[in-house]
Amino acid sequence: MNHYPEAIVKLIHSLSTLPGIGKKTAERLALHILHAPDHEAASLAADIIELKKSVRLCASCFALTDRETCQICSNPGRDKGVICVVENPADMAAIEKSGAFSGLYHILGGALSPIDGIGPGDIRLAELFRRTRGNDVRELILATRTNVEGEATAAYIRSKLTLTKIKITRIASGIPMGGDLQYVDPLTMQKAMEKRYGI
Amino acid sequence: MNHYPEAIVKLIHSLSTLPGIGKKTAERLALHILHAPDHEAASLAADIIELKKSVRLCASCFALTDRETCQICSNPGRDKGVICVVENPADMAAIEKSGAFSGLYHILGGALSPIDGIGPGDIRLAELFRRTRGNDVRELILATRTNVEGEATAAYIRSKLTLTKIKITRIASGIPMGGDLQYVDPLTMQKAMEKRYGI
Repeated sequence: MNHYPEAIVKLIHSLSTLPGIGKKTAERLALHILHAPDHEAASLAADIIELKKSVRLCASCFALTDRETCQICSNPGRDKGVICVVENPADMAAIEKSGAFSGLYHILGGALSPIDGIGPGDIRLAELFRRTRGNDVRELILATRTNVEGEATAAYIRSKLTLTKIKITRIASGIPMGGDLQYVDPLTMQKAMEKRYGI
Repeated sequence: MNHYPEAIVKLIHSLSTLPGIGKKTAERLALHILHAPDHEAASLAADIIELKKSVRLCASCFALTDRETCQICSNPGRDKGVICVVENPADMAAIEKSGAFSGLYHILGGALSPIDGIGPGDIRLAELFRRTRGNDVRELILATRTNVEGEATAAYIRSKLTLTKIKITRIASGIPMGGDLQYVDPLTMQKAMEKRYGI
């Protein structure tokens, strides 16, 4: 890299610490930024600083927000009787994009994973159970991922709420919409057959 | 995107203006930066600002540098009699990485492309011809790309220097080293056959 000036080498290094950005891509991005108009580069740098300064977690659901409680929790139009439990903000964003849910969320900040040393105390389970003790929660949708950790987390939550009157549901697994059956993995296919329903 | 706070949406937008970074990747990068230590994000932002401030073009070869003349032009160990003409700094970096060249460079800043309105006045050809008028240049290696524009640029330079005593060469085309012949495109294969040499 010593054929580039110091400032470029430094930016390439910084960029290549980002996930999915290797040396080659970092080099391409750095050269793009170098040739981009000054105001674009300045605004990229400013946006990074602003992000770290203004974004925090919602006091209620732990979604990313720039306020005390997030847009969703403070929206009177959302159904406060249904809480959708997800592992992280990106999962919540995916559900919001679908437009299929109008209740509130609870972001755990991860999933149980004994192998990685992540136990019940390391994700926001206590906060979730505290929320379920409120009077108005009717349903808890467990939308943790469909891998081992996500399933274990859903099972754990289910096991801790045996005495509650709250309805506890799990998001459906099966063939993705528009999915070609020949590319579906055996486990998903198994689940899709097992959960088949009458039409 | 309105399920993310303003600051995240802005950074996602800024990041997605970079080449090869779509909305999805930008979202992943922004969330990574959000969760990264403060000093990492700050240094990324600072590196972007520093890049735009300190990097300029070498007065002689137009390579990227933070000095008046670049490291290569001011290195007494480099052969000033050989100039390698490339389209841009990344091409120069690729040649430097190979370690196969010890002369100087000339960065054109593009290639001739009538279809995009790029004529001889739009790239640094006048500067190149001025450099060839110096007494000490013995060889000009045309290392523009092997696509239509690069070949046209090399042909143009060749045609403008018919009266010179300088040796003008073109980098070789052919099968990439370690390349599996079955994956080589027909044009490259044609070139490789045409330029075959006795051993």
